[in-house]
Amino acid sequence: MSIAFQGESGAFSELAAIEYFGGKQKAVAVPMWEDVFDAVEKRNTDFGIIPIENSLGGSIHKNYDFLLQHDLCITGEIFLKISQFFLANKGVTLSKVRRIYSHPQGFEQCRDYIKKLKNVELIPVSNTATAAKMVKDSGAPDAATISSMQAAIDYDLHILARNIEDNAENITRFLILSKKPHVYARHGDMKTSVVFSLKNMAGALFKSLSVFALRDIDLIKIESRPVKGKPFEYMFYLDFAGSETAKSQSHALNHLQEITMFCRVLGSYPVGRLAHPEYKKR
Amino acid sequence: MSIAFQGESGAFSELAAIEYFGGKQKAVAVPMWEDVFDAVEKRNTDFGIIPIENSLGGSIHKNYDFLLQHDLCITGEIFLKISQFFLANKGVTLSKVRRIYSHPQGFEQCRDYIKKLKNVELIPVSNTATAAKMVKDSGAPDAATISSMQAAIDYDLHILARNIEDNAENITRFLILSKKPHVYARHGDMKTSVVFSLKNMAGALFKSLSVFALRDIDLIKIESRPVKGKPFEYMFYLDFAGSETAKSQSHALNHLQEITMFCRVLGSYPVGRLAHPEYKKR
Repeated sequence: MSIAFQGESGAFSELAAIEYFGGKQKAVAVPMWEDVFDAVEKRNTDFGIIPIENSLGGSIHKNYDFLLQHDLCITGEIFLKISQFFLANKGVTLSKVRRIYSHPQGFEQCRDYIKKLKNVELIPVSNTATAAKMVKDSGAPDAATISSMQAAIDYDLHILARNIEDNAENITRFLILSKKPHVYARHGDMKTSVVFSLKNMAGALFKSLSVFALRDIDLIKIESRPVKGKPFEYMFYLDFAGSETAKSQSHALNHLQEITMFCRVLGSYPVGRLAHPEYKKR
Repeated sequence: MSIAFQGESGAFSELAAIEYFGGKQKAVAVPMWEDVFDAVEKRNTDFGIIPIENSLGGSIHKNYDFLLQHDLCITGEIFLKISQFFLANKGVTLSKVRRIYSHPQGFEQCRDYIKKLKNVELIPVSNTATAAKMVKDSGAPDAATISSMQAAIDYDLHILARNIEDNAENITRFLILSKKPHVYARHGDMKTSVVFSLKNMAGALFKSLSVFALRDIDLIKIESRPVKGKPFEYMFYLDFAGSETAKSQSHALNHLQEITMFCRVLGSYPVGRLAHPEYKKR
């Protein structure tokens, strides 16, 4: 089983993939989020994993856009507890740090910690583990990175500080993508993700949500993204409880088709568990 | 009348402020978005202006968070047509460009144009006009910036290409902030912005939207942001048609208070016009 993830060894996406597949996967690093979609679409890997939402930073909106642009299925999700570490090359002390490399979400999650540091420049990088690798490869005596404990192990970096996030409730939700939908035996709690655009009529958003409310189906999340070329019209992404093949849910989806301009089910999948990553020498 | 904006001379926020006040404002540049909120809160300026949404890039989510964290009112909005220009120092030709400075939304809006360029590095900066100033100040022979036509004039930069955005329907919505609400004589179309969190009950989001639907009040926009410390609970930001003091709207808001955990009106203001910026030597 191969799964594409964005970044480098030690990326939170890789840790999430290991937890999801119990270590039985071959994780393939790709440079950008869109490359994860491409890898699965071109069947270079069986699966892909992308972060979709963080409990502090919010939704990763670009990945919502990619879900719409690519013809893939969501076949699973997993929630990963995120702990950020402040890492540098051996011999670098806190007072020597002048530049910090991380993903913008890494900076966002550690705002309070960063505020206390003086004269430091923040350099955004596409992934926290990529940032860690850059610091290691450069050997810089004045650089640090906000990255995972696994990155500290993988790149043999020194730990300046542990768990530096502002809020301990730091959890990222990841989606597992595949080319074909996985048919689950319906045991346990399921969740369905759908994307739709509204017809131009009064109360259109309310009506689209009513198809679920009328059938006592819980809405878990709603997200909106702009429709390109139609200023201030939106695509809505909705997660609701239950499988698309369950009776009420399938009626609700038929009803939704009826009253929306565009509607696509992105996938039905078991509600994910919260995983605490294990860090290992490898 | 003074108004704080983020960036430097030639920033789209400044152009929007000029259009909003018809040139009768004193625009004060501050480095970061949160500084705009601080300037108004500490009464250093009468008003502040922030971008809240772009028709291609989507919502500017950080500014939604700041609206909640600061005790200010939205007193107006304006829509500005955005045209991105590719600028460099005199003598720099397209083939010499190796680095491009801009705001991440600048890159986002010009993805197709950037894809065609070879061997260029993208360097994100806090504002497009700040990026233009950096290119000018450095005198770099291999750098360019994606910025406004006004920045080309203000920093005397050479135009390599005009209107390089992927989609001509490129419009940013800006909000005008003040310390106290402005009481508008109710002529013309009004809009109200509200933020709320849901009670933990079945169908809570649906019920909160129903207070508007039941009174035939149009929903214009919905946005959600994470509640820090409560993973996967959300703050909802809603724009709806009409003034908070109109009869149906005031009933709807009372009803909303009743069924939400937290609810705050951010402001009622006239629906903004679409402005095309005028570029001037100054």
